[in-house]
Amino acid sequence: MSPRRPERRSEEAAKAVIQAARELCQEVGYAKLSIEGIAARAGVGKNTIYRWWPSKGAVLLDGLLELWGEAAPFPDTGDAVADFKTQMKAAVGAFSSELGQHYRALLGEVQHDGVLAEALQERLLRPMMARATDRIELAKRQGQIRGDLDAELAIELLYGPIYHRWLLSQRAPEPARIEAMVDSVFTGMTPRPDL
Amino acid sequence: MSPRRPERRSEEAAKAVIQAARELCQEVGYAKLSIEGIAARAGVGKNTIYRWWPSKGAVLLDGLLELWGEAAPFPDTGDAVADFKTQMKAAVGAFSSELGQHYRALLGEVQHDGVLAEALQERLLRPMMARATDRIELAKRQGQIRGDLDAELAIELLYGPIYHRWLLSQRAPEPARIEAMVDSVFTGMTPRPDL
Repeated sequence: MSPRRPERRSEEAAKAVIQAARELCQEVGYAKLSIEGIAARAGVGKNTIYRWWPSKGAVLLDGLLELWGEAAPFPDTGDAVADFKTQMKAAVGAFSSELGQHYRALLGEVQHDGVLAEALQERLLRPMMARATDRIELAKRQGQIRGDLDAELAIELLYGPIYHRWLLSQRAPEPARIEAMVDSVFTGMTPRPDL
Repeated sequence: MSPRRPERRSEEAAKAVIQAARELCQEVGYAKLSIEGIAARAGVGKNTIYRWWPSKGAVLLDGLLELWGEAAPFPDTGDAVADFKTQMKAAVGAFSSELGQHYRALLGEVQHDGVLAEALQERLLRPMMARATDRIELAKRQGQIRGDLDAELAIELLYGPIYHRWLLSQRAPEPARIEAMVDSVFTGMTPRPDL
């Protein structure tokens, strides 16, 4: 008999499952990832996995949250344009790592899995949006973003171009491109006589 | 023996397959769509489908192209801001129809199917980008968009916010929201003393 408490054994099994899902997704790709494969790699039964997670995507979401952590914090140097460039370069840099592979797979899967979509919203996207909103509201108080601009719209203006390129064309923007994106979102596309 | 020529029979079978895929995707959803189910509904063998298409997503792409057609043309009234609002409202309106259901499913699938991703690029996205680029270059000549702005960047600035909302939050922006998006992309987020 194991001397460990049952909840401790469960915690270790859960960690093994998440680790196995991360490894297998990198090795075989998301399409070929299976609960059977994860169970075999983690040394647990399939039913153990289904007791805790509704789908392979849900296991991978736990892995993604581990990786995301504080991968791309929102700095405050007093210069909102510079700070969003810094944050976005860090986030897009992470897109080309293991994090990006899992994040892309999950963003694909949520297009036809409503339960996973809600979990991704609640556990990853809303907390990220909340941190971005804080930085935008600060920039408004600092007079660097129009005071009447809805913060959610500002987030969509800033991050939409990155996701457009990443999800429609499977390309991540280069750092110089990110700078051009942020500059254009702040200054607009209309010709300005003073520029 | 049928009096029809073989290529004519093939064409009819192909149409039946595409129609079956469209219907089944609406009835059971993309996740449960299968080549077996499409073959049964269309009254053809599975091998007939695999001879012409590499995956269920590829069949659905043909259905999507039928639906997209000229769903959201790019008008030229001489007012680029108004014209992009008109085009985007038509496109986003189509997102809430059968077209949007298939388009969302395919944008999900291309995140882990590189062959389908290339087909979507070549057959749908690049032609759409080419038409948008023409309208942007016209707006530059009309003095309504900065002449030095890269057209692909302009497309990402304009359409990125829509896709951000649609693919990350599974929500389509309302017409009034689309107007605010386009206005903000043209005028920028920075406070302007003249506004």
